[in-house]
Amino acid sequence: MTLLQGLDYASVFIFGLTGALAASRAQLDIVGFVFLACLTAVGGGTLRDVILNRDAVFWVADPGMILSGCIAAVLVFFTAHLLESRLRALEWLDALALGVAVPAGVGVALGMTQTWPIVVIMGIATGTFGGLMRDVVCNEVPLILKKGELYATAAFAGALAAVLVTLLGGSTLVALLACGVTTFALRAGSLLFGWCLPVYKSRPPRS
Amino acid sequence: MTLLQGLDYASVFIFGLTGALAASRAQLDIVGFVFLACLTAVGGGTLRDVILNRDAVFWVADPGMILSGCIAAVLVFFTAHLLESRLRALEWLDALALGVAVPAGVGVALGMTQTWPIVVIMGIATGTFGGLMRDVVCNEVPLILKKGELYATAAFAGALAAVLVTLLGGSTLVALLACGVTTFALRAGSLLFGWCLPVYKSRPPRS
Amino acid sequence: MTLLQGLDYASVFIFGLTGALAASRAQLDIVGFVFLACLTAVGGGTLRDVILNRDAVFWVADPGMILSGCIAAVLVFFTAHLLESRLRALEWLDALALGVAVPAGVGVALGMTQTWPIVVIMGIATGTFGGLMRDVVCNEVPLILKKGELYATAAFAGALAAVLVTLLGGSTLVALLACGVTTFALRAGSLLFGWCLPVYKSRPPRS
Repeated sequence: MTLLQGLDYASVFIFGLTGALAASRAQLDIVGFVFLACLTAVGGGTLRDVILNRDAVFWVADPGMILSGCIAAVLVFFTAHLLESRLRALEWLDALALGVAVPAGVGVALGMTQTWPIVVIMGIATGTFGGLMRDVVCNEVPLILKKGELYATAAFAGALAAVLVTLLGGSTLVALLACGVTTFALRAGSLLFGWCLPVYKSRPPRS
Repeated sequence: MTLLQGLDYASVFIFGLTGALAASRAQLDIVGFVFLACLTAVGGGTLRDVILNRDAVFWVADPGMILSGCIAAVLVFFTAHLLESRLRALEWLDALALGVAVPAGVGVALGMTQTWPIVVIMGIATGTFGGLMRDVVCNEVPLILKKGELYATAAFAGALAAVLVTLLGGSTLVALLACGVTTFALRAGSLLFGWCLPVYKSRPPRS
Repeated sequence: MTLLQGLDYASVFIFGLTGALAASRAQLDIVGFVFLACLTAVGGGTLRDVILNRDAVFWVADPGMILSGCIAAVLVFFTAHLLESRLRALEWLDALALGVAVPAGVGVALGMTQTWPIVVIMGIATGTFGGLMRDVVCNEVPLILKKGELYATAAFAGALAAVLVTLLGGSTLVALLACGVTTFALRAGSLLFGWCLPVYKSRPPRS
């Protein structure tokens, strides 16, 4: 298994757990768990592959990816009742998934020698769209739109870190490591300590 | 017209009717009916074709598909007031569309000799994503997320039936027939008799 | 810069402004502004390019597009408080963006010598999907679904105007101009004077 495949597998599994947790909050049956887990798990990477026009979408080339999402769904179906707070678990697993999926997107774009703006965007898109689809389908406020939290910012900083390491001559391995650590650290700091950027708050909307 | 084209036409027309019914509930004008009908009608198949990287999306190759969605929209615009319950009609037509669109997805994937997990996923995706887009755009709870109903399960069982028939040496025609009948029967049984799988219900979400 | 690139740039910038205004209503931070601005800005054109199977999505081929969306986001972040009504500004900029994005979609399809139904659909899709994604992600009622307003209709009429000019032997420049003017005039007339088509209103939904 290559490094990029490993990142895709990890991202699929962890995002799959978050999709299944969302399914448990919506009280679906086991197939509903699998559906929502797989949608969340492969959503971001599918968008990446379609936009970059890769030969095949990653999970069509390797159906083991889907199996990974299914295992995550089944695991959550039988253990979610053990969690004290599913929402809290969902947020932390989502943070972890973000820290794996952003490098997964960055790595693929680097491997195709895309320009650095595209590398950054692919990192952000791969990291955020699976969770975004999960939240939109479940009719929840997307995590990425939560006021006063670092989310898109964490993904952006991580992707930028990878680009900087690469420009400074670092290896892909170091670049992806820097990317994952930066992304997760910022997101975790936001969840734990309330780290945030100043938000636009002059006025709430009137309507 | 080939069998696969016929399935696509039927799926487009019936899903188009459901999109137009959703438009009537949102009280749109005639162009809004056509927009929502066509979005629902071609959403699932478009996703299928983009992911499988077919030479052309089915309705770009054959614009008659779009005409079919438009006819469905106009039909509903002038007759929806005759229905006693548009929601009930929408649910039943959606069930019928599911029973046609799942085989449409399965058939294309079988024709491209994809592996069986991909065949199953393409059946589910083609069957469910048009309706999912319709419900998300209309800001309704997606039918696929309704508690205690068979929906994703019906699509999954139908797609699995097609794979089993094919593995047992049955012809594509028999496989697609088994797929459609299984899907519709399970979905209809759920609507009529409340058939369902055990749902995850230990706790509703707290927030 | 070609005419089509110019249209894409204008469409990206103006739709970017509307996405950033939506971000200001959701009280996001600066990276959230950029995310929502870029999603809105490139959403419609990305769909167009993926469905038409172009060699590369327009903003992958020219990352300056993304820069344009970022500038729009920053501009709004620092000036939105000067607006008397952000919702009103959003609606008018959205109307202007529609008047640029519909010709952008029509122009690409004409350049690929697609059939006229595809040309019309690409105009509508390019014009409406960015805004639709913005509204769905922000959990607002999509502008395109607002009762008693011309929106899809304006896009449809504009795209049709371009096709008619082309069939009558007019140049692409004239066709795209007719398209943009028709689209914007109808949408503006709807905002200013309440122009609308008869809506389906026999009954609101019961549930």
